[in-house]
This record gives sequence, C-alpha cells and structure tokens, in this order.
Amino acid sequence: MSRERPRRPRTRCGRCREKAVIELRRHSVAFCRDCFLHYCRQQVTKAIDKYHMLAPGDRVLVAVSGGKDSLALWDLLLHLGYQVDGLYLGLGIGGYSDRSGQVCQAFADERGATLRHHDLAAEHGFAIPQAAAAAATGGRATCGVCGLSKRYVFNSTALAGGYDVVATGHNLDDEAAVLFGNTLHWDTGSMARQFPVLEATRPGLVKKVKPLYRLAERETAAYCVLTGIDYVVEECPLVAGNTQLRYKETLNELEEQTPGTKHEFLFGYLEKAAHLLEAADDATLTACSRCGMVTQAPEDPDQAPVCAFCRTSARLAAPLPQVLPQVIGR
Amino acid sequence: MSRERPRRPRTRCGRCREKAVIELRRHSVAFCRDCFLHYCRQQVTKAIDKYHMLAPGDRVLVAVSGGKDSLALWDLLLHLGYQVDGLYLGLGIGGYSDRSGQVCQAFADERGATLRHHDLAAEHGFAIPQAAAAAATGGRATCGVCGLSKRYVFNSTALAGGYDVVATGHNLDDEAAVLFGNTLHWDTGSMARQFPVLEATRPGLVKKVKPLYRLAERETAAYCVLTGIDYVVEECPLVAGNTQLRYKETLNELEEQTPGTKHEFLFGYLEKAAHLLEAADDATLTACSRCGMVTQAPEDPDQAPVCAFCRTSARLAAPLPQVLPQVIGR
Repeated sequence: MSRERPRRPRTRCGRCREKAVIELRRHSVAFCRDCFLHYCRQQVTKAIDKYHMLAPGDRVLVAVSGGKDSLALWDLLLHLGYQVDGLYLGLGIGGYSDRSGQVCQAFADERGATLRHHDLAAEHGFAIPQAAAAAATGGRATCGVCGLSKRYVFNSTALAGGYDVVATGHNLDDEAAVLFGNTLHWDTGSMARQFPVLEATRPGLVKKVKPLYRLAERETAAYCVLTGIDYVVEECPLVAGNTQLRYKETLNELEEQTPGTKHEFLFGYLEKAAHLLEAADDATLTACSRCGMVTQAPEDPDQAPVCAFCRTSARLAAPLPQVLPQVIGR
Repeated sequence: MSRERPRRPRTRCGRCREKAVIELRRHSVAFCRDCFLHYCRQQVTKAIDKYHMLAPGDRVLVAVSGGKDSLALWDLLLHLGYQVDGLYLGLGIGGYSDRSGQVCQAFADERGATLRHHDLAAEHGFAIPQAAAAAATGGRATCGVCGLSKRYVFNSTALAGGYDVVATGHNLDDEAAVLFGNTLHWDTGSMARQFPVLEATRPGLVKKVKPLYRLAERETAAYCVLTGIDYVVEECPLVAGNTQLRYKETLNELEEQTPGTKHEFLFGYLEKAAHLLEAADDATLTACSRCGMVTQAPEDPDQAPVCAFCRTSARLAAPLPQVLPQVIGR
C-alpha cells in the first residue's frame, strides 16, 4: 500500500539503523555488530527459556571441538552468566586434533575457564582413524563411530564430574540436516528422539541441551568473527562423503530459492509434528553389562546387554598401527 | 564371496535373460519389453490389492489429461479387465488443451472406450488462463486453482455418473514430491490425507485411488513408448516456477546419488509414519451452501459454508478477456 512507510535499505541495522554488517534473509532483517550479538544472545536465551534447558546454578559441561559452534556456545553461555566448564575429546585425528585441542585450551585460558581433556586413545584404546580403516572394510561409518564416542564420553564425563547438563553446539543447519536425513528414511524412532532438550529420564543419563538450535551455521561463524573468537576453520579430514554434508547442501539449495526453508522445516517439526511422532520412540533402556552405562535393551531377553560403544571399542581397540597417515595429515 | 554365481551383466532382462530395454536402478534390475510390461501390471495389481482400491464390477472413472501417466493408467486398468471410462477436463489452455483432448479421444476411439468431456469454461464460466492472470496480481497460484478444479470436477462428474471410484495417474515421483513439499512445511493435515486410497467417508464423496503410486515417472513414460500409446509430451505452458517441479528436481538429485531415495521416502512414510500422523487430519466436513458438494466446515459456525471451488469460480468467472495469449500459445 502506498501509505506504508517506505522500506529502508537492508544495509541499515533493523534495530538501531546503524550500518549493518550482516543480513539474515530468513528474518528479512540486517544487523550491525552489536545488535547482531544481541540477537544471538536473545536467540540462545529464548531457546533456554522455551525448553527449560538450564536453571540458575546448574553446573554445565559444554562439549567443545574447537569449531565455531561449540566455542560460540561456550562464549554465549559464559556471557549469559552460566557456570560452564568445557570438555575437549581428543579423537586422535593427527594434526587436526592437535590444533583443535590447542584452540580450545587457548579459549579457556583467555577467559580463566576450566577445560577438561579426555583422550579416546588413552582412555579407550582406539582413535577415530582406526574407525576409518575399519569402515573402509565394511565396518560402521567413521562419522557414526565418532558421534557414538562423543555421546558416550560426554555423558560419562558429565556423570563422573557431577554436572547437571551437557550442552552441545548443534546449530539450526545441523539439526535441520539430521531431521532431513531421518525424514527421508522415516526413521521415526530417531525423529522422536530429536529435540532441543533430552531430559535425564533415568539414573546414568545426564540431561542434554542444544542452545544454538535457533542460530544458523553462518550466524555462529559470524558470531565468532565479530567477537574475535579464534576457531578451527578446516573441516575434519575424515568427513569426505558424509551424508549429513550432502543433506546440508540440498537444504542450502532449497534455502537459496526460498529463504527460511530450513527454519520452517525444523521449527515446523518441533511445533507441529514432534508430538505426533512421540509414540515411535519405543526404545527400552537398561544398563550395559560391561560398563554400566545406559543402553537399549537387546531384543532377546536372554542376551546380556552390551552398549554400542563397548562393542565398538572392543572391535577397534588394538595396538595402534600407522593407519591412514595420508588421510589424517600432519 | 567368490563362490557366489557371477552377476550377469545388467543389459540382460532380470526375469527372462533376453536383451534388456530398461534398467530400474532402485530395484537393481533390468527388463526386456515384455517383462517390463509384466512388471508394470504387477505393480498396479499390487497397489490395487494392497489398498483394496478396486473391486470386480466397480465402475471406474479415470481422469485423463493426455499425458503419459493417465493414459498408461487407463490402458493398464483396461488390460487388467476393469470397466473404466475416461474423463477429460478441458482447462482452456489454448492449443495445449486442444491437443490434449484430441489425444485422449484418439486413445478412447482406438479401444472402443468411452471418454467423457467436461469443459471448465462452458460449465463454470472460467478457464485456467484467468487463474494465471489473477495469480499474477496476487490470487491463488495457477496450479492450485487447476488442482482444485480437477478434484471438484472429477468428484462431481463421478457422482453424477454413478461411478464407484475415481482413479488418477499420480505416480511415485508425483506422490514423493507432494509429500516432500508437505514435509518441508510439516503441513501435517495434508500429510495425513495423502494416501494411495481415499475412501468415500460421507455421501457426496467418491472414492479416489492412485494405482500408479508404485511406478516411477520414467516407468510410465517407458510403458507408453513400449506399448505405442501416443501421449502429449509437452508440459503445460503455465507450469513455469511450479514448486512441485522444484521438489521433483531436488528429489531427482538425491535419487541420482542414492537410487531408491524416492521409493524409500514415499513407502517409508506410508508404512512407518502415516498412521502416526492420522490424528492431524482434523478437518470437519459439511455441505457447500452453494453447490451442495462436500467441503471443510468454516471455523465460524455462523458463517455459511462455501467450498473453495465456488469461491474461486465466483472470483474468476467473468467475460473471457484475451488473457496471456503469449503464454498459452497457439
């Protein structure tokens, strides 16, 4: 209508009218540096409030990889006044892992924060390159072993350290891509368990939260750049061919054509469909007969329950050969 | 394993070992002409049996557009011994519609089958180019009006003609693309209503079936080519920018990387998720106060129910101007 106020050019901040540094097409808005940081904190606060992720006084353990998402999350949670320690899991992926650990330690040192280190090879007798070697001969996919190991170590370390919550840096793009993959296969059990918060439904489980699920990948990257957080830009050298990355590309193409596609897909799921799929989460949980951690009960009740991490580490834990030096790099 | 029989080259028919003419990557099989036609008939029989689509003696009305899917369907149903008349809906899209109607009539004449003609402009006072003109100024999207008109006319014609079932030529690609679009938006109501069979749940509704939902688009095209069915290859000139086509492209890219993606997405939905989403179909049905056909009850109980087709035709039915001659072609 002609009587509406003329639209200001998008290069102005939508909040304060200063010169904008970033445009968020899905929200049809642009922000200057300070208002963008305000927006990021606001989105994280909204996530935490909406799903009751964190309570004042909670001891939080944030899983950090050295990448933009997890370091942005740690920074945001510290800024918002939470009591947050970091946990770095050494995956043994050559120079990539070394650099990642150093970046996390430097981040912690600058802020006087506590970073715990846990090393997969030292503690469990295998590292991710063994998984890659095994995957090449038909074993579980490398990224699958890596994800499994992370979930296991994050939970067990938080439990042992008396933490109330584990926070991970999954962003909107990550969550949309996981949901996309599960939806393409209608893996309804996994869909039912994909939520910004997973409560500690039984002893042995620590509550898990994803406070960045409202922020897109390029927003967490921009947050790091604008706040001067030094993070590892390079991708894991073992990630080639990862299906998650393919799904991200597909979603990026759809987003390019229709900004907001990823947001609508993820948020639409959470608001309109997640409750309908709840019934599909029919996993019965029990304690692993080897390590005592929580795992899915085997279908055969006479079979001793052994968790996927114990099965995997038994298979992979062997004297470390010089595997895949050409892949893991320096 | 070395003791397995060596795999025959894919260029041999997987059923009779004759030279193959088509390869179906998602089934890892190739077929010669005759075995491919057998496969198509088998898939349609399987669809009909699985969802109790048709009973012997049913009077079936197949909606034909002149394209490969609907003519293949008519041919397949006749071949399987069903009593099937055709219905051609004239959409008034210039030479495209003229050619489509002629192709359908020739198909019917060759087989001594009955083709009913229904003309949108003559019967309802508007044609699809008016919808395109209105869409250009902010009205309902052209393909939306076309789909709405088809559903309305197919149902009302079947009802008036005493048919038991309306059959449409939606193939696997169509159904996967519709589901994909609805899933991206988590339009759970539409998802709950997307099924290979829709029963006549109340008077005024005729049962709808999609016997081709197990056959891919290139398979219905191949069926026509191999049986010598003459069909209209050109696409509707008004379809440019249709989101359904974009979703088909996206699914084709995913299929290219992983054959079977579309099949798994659609069949996985039907088998694993559709029952969970049933509760989302909360539409209350009533009779349209203008035409008497079944429609969704308005939210405001004091408002007279008017169906979307009556609302649309009232808006569009006007003396036919020379709209979009450059778009609708000869």
